[in-house]
Amino acid sequence: MVASSLLRSLTRRGCAGPAAFSRYYRHHQHPFSTAASAAGAQSEAGWGFPGLGPTAKGEKARVVVLGTGWAGSRLMKDLDTGGYDVVCAAPRNHMVFTPLLASTCVGTLEFRSVAEPLARIQPAVSKSPGSHFFLARCTGVDPDAHTIDCETVTDGQKDALEPWKFKVAYDKLVFACGAEASTFGIHGVADNAVFLREVHHAQEIRRRLLLNLMLSEVPGISEEEKRKLLHCVVVGGGPTGVEFSGELSDFIIRDVKQRYSHVKDYIHVTLIEANEILSSFDVRLRQYAAKQLVKSGVRLVRGIVKDVQPNKLILDNGEEVPYGVLVWSTGVGASSFVKSLPFPKSPGGSFFNDGRIGVDEWLRVPSVQDVYAIGDCSGFLESTGKEVLPALAQVAERQGKYLAQLLNHVMKAGGGHATSAAEVDIGPPFVYKHLGSMATVGRYKALVDLRQSKVG
Amino acid sequence: MVASSLLRSLTRRGCAGPAAFSRYYRHHQHPFSTAASAAGAQSEAGWGFPGLGPTAKGEKARVVVLGTGWAGSRLMKDLDTGGYDVVCAAPRNHMVFTPLLASTCVGTLEFRSVAEPLARIQPAVSKSPGSHFFLARCTGVDPDAHTIDCETVTDGQKDALEPWKFKVAYDKLVFACGAEASTFGIHGVADNAVFLREVHHAQEIRRRLLLNLMLSEVPGISEEEKRKLLHCVVVGGGPTGVEFSGELSDFIIRDVKQRYSHVKDYIHVTLIEANEILSSFDVRLRQYAAKQLVKSGVRLVRGIVKDVQPNKLILDNGEEVPYGVLVWSTGVGASSFVKSLPFPKSPGGSFFNDGRIGVDEWLRVPSVQDVYAIGDCSGFLESTGKEVLPALAQVAERQGKYLAQLLNHVMKAGGGHATSAAEVDIGPPFVYKHLGSMATVGRYKALVDLRQSKVG
Repeated sequence: MVASSLLRSLTRRGCAGPAAFSRYYRHHQHPFSTAASAAGAQSEAGWGFPGLGPTAKGEKARVVVLGTGWAGSRLMKDLDTGGYDVVCAAPRNHMVFTPLLASTCVGTLEFRSVAEPLARIQPAVSKSPGSHFFLARCTGVDPDAHTIDCETVTDGQKDALEPWKFKVAYDKLVFACGAEASTFGIHGVADNAVFLREVHHAQEIRRRLLLNLMLSEVPGISEEEKRKLLHCVVVGGGPTGVEFSGELSDFIIRDVKQRYSHVKDYIHVTLIEANEILSSFDVRLRQYAAKQLVKSGVRLVRGIVKDVQPNKLILDNGEEVPYGVLVWSTGVGASSFVKSLPFPKSPGGSFFNDGRIGVDEWLRVPSVQDVYAIGDCSGFLESTGKEVLPALAQVAERQGKYLAQLLNHVMKAGGGHATSAAEVDIGPPFVYKHLGSMATVGRYKALVDLRQSKVG
Repeated sequence: MVASSLLRSLTRRGCAGPAAFSRYYRHHQHPFSTAASAAGAQSEAGWGFPGLGPTAKGEKARVVVLGTGWAGSRLMKDLDTGGYDVVCAAPRNHMVFTPLLASTCVGTLEFRSVAEPLARIQPAVSKSPGSHFFLARCTGVDPDAHTIDCETVTDGQKDALEPWKFKVAYDKLVFACGAEASTFGIHGVADNAVFLREVHHAQEIRRRLLLNLMLSEVPGISEEEKRKLLHCVVVGGGPTGVEFSGELSDFIIRDVKQRYSHVKDYIHVTLIEANEILSSFDVRLRQYAAKQLVKSGVRLVRGIVKDVQPNKLILDNGEEVPYGVLVWSTGVGASSFVKSLPFPKSPGGSFFNDGRIGVDEWLRVPSVQDVYAIGDCSGFLESTGKEVLPALAQVAERQGKYLAQLLNHVMKAGGGHATSAAEVDIGPPFVYKHLGSMATVGRYKALVDLRQSKVG
């Protein structure tokens, strides 16, 4: 019943099959061509390509959210679905509780414990007729037509759907698509290292660890080969790298000695950092963390990685470091999609801030209507006079919460639909209050830095 | 300490590096060439290739077990590690509780609940200096030299070890390597269908199911495409196929209606069987099962699959059946490795029995010394006058238990080492008593067939 009424509503809003779609795309190649999009949106069939067409005045307004991270998930959780339909397009259908990801690599936590399905965070996406989750990547945005282009993500799944393109019209559009792991252009990182940002990364690390533990037990393998297979190298001494190193050494002390006692003396952890570990923490906490890590058997190396090859990496002093598992965690930077967007960017300054979508103090993208950006993909514009906030869960989650309040308020004041919010008072600007930082270092020990700072 | 003493013992037993290994293999290509193996085993360095050499009289005898299924796991669990070293070579390091695998596909059970690491079943393999688990496949056996050839299994893991070959000398060798999913030579099965025998199969089915549920929600997809994506086809009406169909329909009734209500009316399950479903069960139970399945929405199709293509299969009456997920569960047959072994085989009769390693009433391979076979890879020789037992967990587990008792008894009587058991009384032969069969059909309903039969 629901499904068929949904279909009717799709049809009414101008959905068409693949033929119409390819016809549209043959004529209008460039996704950012305003003329083309406008022509498409105004074609006589309403749209002339598959997707969700604009909402009508009597219907709920549609908030389109790109991303299911800390920012997007909190936003969708708090949106008032009495007045809004929530449509989310993202390459994953769950939120990841990233600070606990390191613990899943070694079995301290189950993978499902750190992932929460979006449908549980915001049930409307699976139940309400006008709300949806689409497993898709946004490929372009047309702020004038108030539409985005999307393409399904199938992750190489054969037999599934061919990548399928569609458009979604929005009343409000929120970029919450996060950042990318930064490799600083170092050769071989993407091919050989594992990041630690998604559940499948943690699964891959766990799989490699256990596989190498088993392979190192095979008879006749040289001592050198064993040490290589069981050398876990972590590059990047931020909280993630430090926490993962701590978890790894816990795993070695607790589990490997018990369950892989034949090879327990061959496993080692090295943490490579170009500067200080945990540089954002107070100096005494940093020193404590370093001492704890060394005590747990982690080798701390100050160095810069120059090149990464399949079984070894090269430091800038020429030293070769053979490894069995390489985890890369040197922070994040703007994704190429975010960089490609036709919006002003937040000021660069550092590698990590460069290229983020610039927002004003209300987290709006000021050059266009009804577009917002929150979390790691966004940063305050220079004109706000505020510093770009760090790429932290704490910031993203707070921004999601703030923006939900703002949008709910706007909707209640009659500004929910596209281009109707200009006259509405949107309340106070976003103010970030840093509550402190925490990092575990293994063996049930952790650092807490409570020097409070009020930024923004 | 343990590791270094292990290394000493490996060296003493004649382990050598890859160079020596390749030298050996250059001269002696054929793994079954007795002359070559004997020459190798008697070469002046003891062995001249990597591996575990023969045990000495004062040491524990070594039982080499190939496989970690029902038969092998039960055997290793019960082996007396006071007198035996246990060495297991298998492509997976855990036992799978196969009857519950179907429940993990739809989230009723967690994957880890149905897999038990071998190191927990028999802790000696990770702790005792002479006991090991090797993640490796056996590639050949030399019964005269009492050695097997092995090659590590890395499952396409790049950056891990190159496939590594080694030999293991045995005092007792037990084939417990199971059978293979049978495809009856039907084109396209291996490429397009998922079996339901390993944890990764269940993971793959779950992944495809959830992916297709999400993809079917994408706007603009045709009704036909949606029905195809969400059509789950199960081929094979044995207990596995029936139980999986039941779990699937439970999943649809309970979870899909709730969590994917937009597309709930498009998902369907079809069970294809050439003959009767659950043919080994009593006729009234079969009828009850069929009724229950139909009631839960499963479409039962009597037909023979002729060809399997990426998104559809063709029945022998020409009917085309489009599918989104295809699960293949038409029983098992002897693996190509088992077929290649130079031992007499159990009588064929049916596809499922053909090519199993022939054993006598004590589960010994009679033509050679110290070699046994249990579980799905073995079958009684014609000379025993007994029927080949069905490929059931029940049979395999009972055989593992029996053989552990036999081997423990032999060891205590002084026959633990190679070629020393000829004079030892080995006790009563194996007798199989069927305790009954069970199959769930979903909705907390199950069949139990208690017609007892004493075979053997």
